[in-house]
Amino acid sequence: MVNAIFVTGTAGSGKSLLTSRLMQWYRDTGAYPVTLNLDPGAVTLPYEPDIDVRNYIDIGTLMESYALGPNGALVMASDLVATKLDEIQEEVYEANPDYLIVDTPGQIELFAFRASGPYFVSNLQADNKATVFAFDGTLVSSPINFVSISLLASAVKLRLKTAQVNALTKRDLVIDRLKDILDWAASAQALESALNVEKDAEYSLLSKDLSRSMTRAGFAPGLVAVSSTTMNGLVNVAAALARTLNQGEDG
Amino acid sequence: MVNAIFVTGTAGSGKSLLTSRLMQWYRDTGAYPVTLNLDPGAVTLPYEPDIDVRNYIDIGTLMESYALGPNGALVMASDLVATKLDEIQEEVYEANPDYLIVDTPGQIELFAFRASGPYFVSNLQADNKATVFAFDGTLVSSPINFVSISLLASAVKLRLKTAQVNALTKRDLVIDRLKDILDWAASAQALESALNVEKDAEYSLLSKDLSRSMTRAGFAPGLVAVSSTTMNGLVNVAAALARTLNQGEDG
Repeated sequence: MVNAIFVTGTAGSGKSLLTSRLMQWYRDTGAYPVTLNLDPGAVTLPYEPDIDVRNYIDIGTLMESYALGPNGALVMASDLVATKLDEIQEEVYEANPDYLIVDTPGQIELFAFRASGPYFVSNLQADNKATVFAFDGTLVSSPINFVSISLLASAVKLRLKTAQVNALTKRDLVIDRLKDILDWAASAQALESALNVEKDAEYSLLSKDLSRSMTRAGFAPGLVAVSSTTMNGLVNVAAALARTLNQGEDG
Repeated sequence: MVNAIFVTGTAGSGKSLLTSRLMQWYRDTGAYPVTLNLDPGAVTLPYEPDIDVRNYIDIGTLMESYALGPNGALVMASDLVATKLDEIQEEVYEANPDYLIVDTPGQIELFAFRASGPYFVSNLQADNKATVFAFDGTLVSSPINFVSISLLASAVKLRLKTAQVNALTKRDLVIDRLKDILDWAASAQALESALNVEKDAEYSLLSKDLSRSMTRAGFAPGLVAVSSTTMNGLVNVAAALARTLNQGEDG
């Protein structure tokens, strides 16, 4: 039984680190996890990928062969990821893991908001699928920014169409606002109160309406905070994933 | 009187082309427009930028000096954009245009969802500011995808905090769905009807709730369709911008 977990989030939100932590977690609990690096632009990773898209797509070669700048090369490389599904699928079959932890491209825009990402997520064979969306702690330390990233997370969920767990990364860097952030995620009322005291009246109004609707739509962030430096919080991410994966969506 | 227009949108949505078309439009109508390329990763542009961040930030040099891959270099370059505000501001003062059309970084994620973008938009001196968000026609040809990009547009609006005009680009590529897309943007009811016939029941439900709230929050896409190849539609973008800029927000 393969549980596929796609780790997503904005550039620099800590996806690769979260991938390595999840790998460690599942291994420590006696399961058999396997990592798939799906970021053709990755240079160094905090883990050794078991399966690596860089074995199929080389950014340097693309830059040379097509005379592309880094932007163009990353876009092309991300688009090519979908074309490598069969080969990658073969490696997954051979490994036959309990958990396939997929570290997605550095910029979520090049994965979720192009055809390649949804195609890959949809067509990868797995018994259960879930996404972990990384809420970058440093991007959500004000209520308006929190709503903004929640909207982005919703947009990604609609594109990838898998059950989604939201993890707040870099909790250590926002320790003074951590309680507030988790309150905003847990309680629409807490978020509204915070928005009420924001200076930007128009944008706090827009934020309030949008956050109300997200709650009504069943998209309650349900944020779990994880550390950048320790395994702190991983147990909660794993628990949320277990609930999500066992709901048997997709597959 | 300087009207600053930030052209935003996902990678490949046609920002640079839209920038060049707006430049041409304003010039043809007798105004004095100036283009600012804010994308350090741009290689070729369909216009000759009057002011260019590439004169201040060189991606190739960053890649070498810091031994960065394309991902890392783009992130660093985008973050450095904010540090060049003073020099760029000086050039804008000297030019003293009626319209400053700002072509933003290729991936909106590296502009809107990092500190650099909001900082730059907020601190650039201008009498009026507005954003044009490019809805990539090829990314919004299904109702669920349309809602997804609308959410992204809302998220960007909350981060950049300027009045926003939404432009549907590549209308020529989605000509068979164009009427539908414009209907979804104009009428919440039309969008809901379309969502009702989508196969993915759960995601269409989430989409319906989210789109209702965006309408209530006053974020009606108000989409204007523009061509990739002709000046078709520009008049409507310019008209929407005129209304938006004259509302005197920010500045």
